[in-house]
Amino acid sequence: MDSDYPKDHPRNVIPELCRLYYSNGWMPGSGGSLSIKYGEEIYITPSGVQKERIQSEDLFVQTSDGEDISGPSCTKGLRKSQCSPVFLNIYRLKKPGAVFHLHSKSAVLVSLMNNGNTLHLSNLQMIKGIPKWTTGGNHKFTDDVTIPIIDNTHTEDGLIDGMVKAMNDYPDTCAVLVRGHGIYAWGHTWEQTKLVCESYDYLFDVMLQLRAAGVQEIR
Amino acid sequence: MDSDYPKDHPRNVIPELCRLYYSNGWMPGSGGSLSIKYGEEIYITPSGVQKERIQSEDLFVQTSDGEDISGPSCTKGLRKSQCSPVFLNIYRLKKPGAVFHLHSKSAVLVSLMNNGNTLHLSNLQMIKGIPKWTTGGNHKFTDDVTIPIIDNTHTEDGLIDGMVKAMNDYPDTCAVLVRGHGIYAWGHTWEQTKLVCESYDYLFDVMLQLRAAGVQEIR
Amino acid sequence: MDSDYPKDHPRNVIPELCRLYYSNGWMPGSGGSLSIKYGEEIYITPSGVQKERIQSEDLFVQTSDGEDISGPSCTKGLRKSQCSPVFLNIYRLKKPGAVFHLHSKSAVLVSLMNNGNTLHLSNLQMIKGIPKWTTGGNHKFTDDVTIPIIDNTHTEDGLIDGMVKAMNDYPDTCAVLVRGHGIYAWGHTWEQTKLVCESYDYLFDVMLQLRAAGVQEIR
Amino acid sequence: MDSDYPKDHPRNVIPELCRLYYSNGWMPGSGGSLSIKYGEEIYITPSGVQKERIQSEDLFVQTSDGEDISGPSCTKGLRKSQCSPVFLNIYRLKKPGAVFHLHSKSAVLVSLMNNGNTLHLSNLQMIKGIPKWTTGGNHKFTDDVTIPIIDNTHTEDGLIDGMVKAMNDYPDTCAVLVRGHGIYAWGHTWEQTKLVCESYDYLFDVMLQLRAAGVQEIR
Repeated sequence: MDSDYPKDHPRNVIPELCRLYYSNGWMPGSGGSLSIKYGEEIYITPSGVQKERIQSEDLFVQTSDGEDISGPSCTKGLRKSQCSPVFLNIYRLKKPGAVFHLHSKSAVLVSLMNNGNTLHLSNLQMIKGIPKWTTGGNHKFTDDVTIPIIDNTHTEDGLIDGMVKAMNDYPDTCAVLVRGHGIYAWGHTWEQTKLVCESYDYLFDVMLQLRAAGVQEIR
Repeated sequence: MDSDYPKDHPRNVIPELCRLYYSNGWMPGSGGSLSIKYGEEIYITPSGVQKERIQSEDLFVQTSDGEDISGPSCTKGLRKSQCSPVFLNIYRLKKPGAVFHLHSKSAVLVSLMNNGNTLHLSNLQMIKGIPKWTTGGNHKFTDDVTIPIIDNTHTEDGLIDGMVKAMNDYPDTCAVLVRGHGIYAWGHTWEQTKLVCESYDYLFDVMLQLRAAGVQEIR
Repeated sequence: MDSDYPKDHPRNVIPELCRLYYSNGWMPGSGGSLSIKYGEEIYITPSGVQKERIQSEDLFVQTSDGEDISGPSCTKGLRKSQCSPVFLNIYRLKKPGAVFHLHSKSAVLVSLMNNGNTLHLSNLQMIKGIPKWTTGGNHKFTDDVTIPIIDNTHTEDGLIDGMVKAMNDYPDTCAVLVRGHGIYAWGHTWEQTKLVCESYDYLFDVMLQLRAAGVQEIR
Repeated sequence: MDSDYPKDHPRNVIPELCRLYYSNGWMPGSGGSLSIKYGEEIYITPSGVQKERIQSEDLFVQTSDGEDISGPSCTKGLRKSQCSPVFLNIYRLKKPGAVFHLHSKSAVLVSLMNNGNTLHLSNLQMIKGIPKWTTGGNHKFTDDVTIPIIDNTHTEDGLIDGMVKAMNDYPDTCAVLVRGHGIYAWGHTWEQTKLVCESYDYLFDVMLQLRAAGVQEIR
């Protein structure tokens, strides 16, 4: 464990997940950011640092209204993730327990191979790992799972308008793809958010490999 | 080791293999399930949890008739794998020492790239790692190894009918592919089951890479 | 830690990064070399050895004028990296805090798939991780990032002329690709150099996967 | 370390390399085998077991004439690798310090994508990692490195005739590919053999990825 906090406290979970997501390629080159809600506090990773080296005491803590509660020592020279306003917007609109932003190559590649504003998944068992956020319950493997894709912007907070529209248009989604950039995904708990991210990434990669093999559609 | 049980006890082996299969991508997003027969007891993983975090005490124990012997503490809120009836059906029909269900991408991809009900492998040395279940002994590398593919169903126990037919039609197989879903594989011991799963996955991946490179057939 | 030196001393950082870069495939078969400037001293890896086994005491230390300060014990039979003159030339011309030379497959593959003398990247978020060396600041994701590609030569020091020309022609680059060989990359600190290498490799791999999928251009 | 033997003793090196080669996919499903000459003794892995679990005391020891010196305790029920006669034949003809047999997918794939009896590599820096066995010294990166490919046989010792012919026809090679099966490679020491195996595998994978991207030839 990374601290004296309880095992499932964000100060332990976030550094552990950062190491995992660095090693599996979802947080390369300081990219990506994690946030977990714990009671009324939202814990957020710092910006622009080697994610696999984040320590318990490096996290920023905010209220869901965006008020700062605490942060790392000034001597560390850390800045709050530029994703913070995007995270807070998702916490406000969707009431999740955690929101992750990842730079997974699979997410970037599927976003670039689809010129449209949505990605469709169907006839794959891992679809059952994706919750229907508004309707409730999980998908059947034969469902059409639609993930909205929004265009990238020069700043993270520039993404908010597109993301609000995407979440309104597709209320059941628990992820939004940002073209050429990555994925924002959420769940009711950090555990579900982790599983959702793994399910999506698996599904994206299967789509990519099918396409590379010349299979255009799964019946 | 994960417990005071002997090193090769399912309470040690299953958590260890779950960590291995999470890290190599065979158990992503809570997918997949393992079972090992130990004496007259069958040990089975819980459902819907992060497989790499399973503890010794989280396993369910059943007789091969499906009678519950023991399970994790109620306080843990765990459910028995939905694969349990599929596992028990295989234990009844094939008398294996272990049955694994894995969501390996290679297994899913080969099942989707073949519209037919079988996958054929030949002229690859790793075929020698696949036992002929009913005939006995292992394959020669020039043998035609046939793996049945069945269609996916909405529940795991819905797979049983298709699997029984597949095992009857191909009595020498020690694996059944489920289209868009994964693989069920078995061996006489957990060690053999592990080796069989590695051999199949290797063979599937070689097939996929050959196909991606435009090689349709191995002579 | 690998020694009694401070945690961020090259004698600790270089062996740690060598293990990382061996495990991710950037330093296979004794290939690649790392250098870090610490005060007025430049620490350089030895040549032709298993990079993941390098110890703190195996490093060579030079001034930026190429004068030897210290080296490993003669009994170890180690030779200074053949990249040393290339490193020193970059330290002289670009004043970086670290220069890494890596044999990443992605770098080699993009260098071979482009017959021209430059690789162009655009419309990918990870571009923001690449600094503009002379102009200052980092790129916008819509910028055209140009990486010069030079031809390989039989000795490492033979690369210097081509590299000087490439750095003059593209003063904002912080990397030069060597065709069929690998990448030289630098940053103001070892941390930035590490992030730059991860960003480039990610971008190269995305380009390769898009090309394999038949996507020629990102709009 | 795995034993009280010196750090570089085969009883320590072989189990460590087996774990490495299991994790990187070169020894899947009990496939592959390692041998190291230490003084006049040749240490060889057992057959048909999980390679990543091999212990120091599980190795077989032979003279280069094939006489048994020692082996694991009978209670372990281990058998000597079926590659032993192939290894001994190479030790006799080429006088190496170690011979490894690996089931790397890249080796298998390049052997299947070439219908001829040789694989040619050129214009890649990693070629410099491949020694010219008879001529002496290492290759220049512009050299044509030729690796013979022989057809697979039902038993390992059936490979010997083809391998002798391949080694006679290509005396400078330090590896022979077996079609659909894997690679045998050697070096003057275990360290060089390890580096050679990494260099070949890297080169094979680059060839495969170039071919997947439609690049047929490197100029």
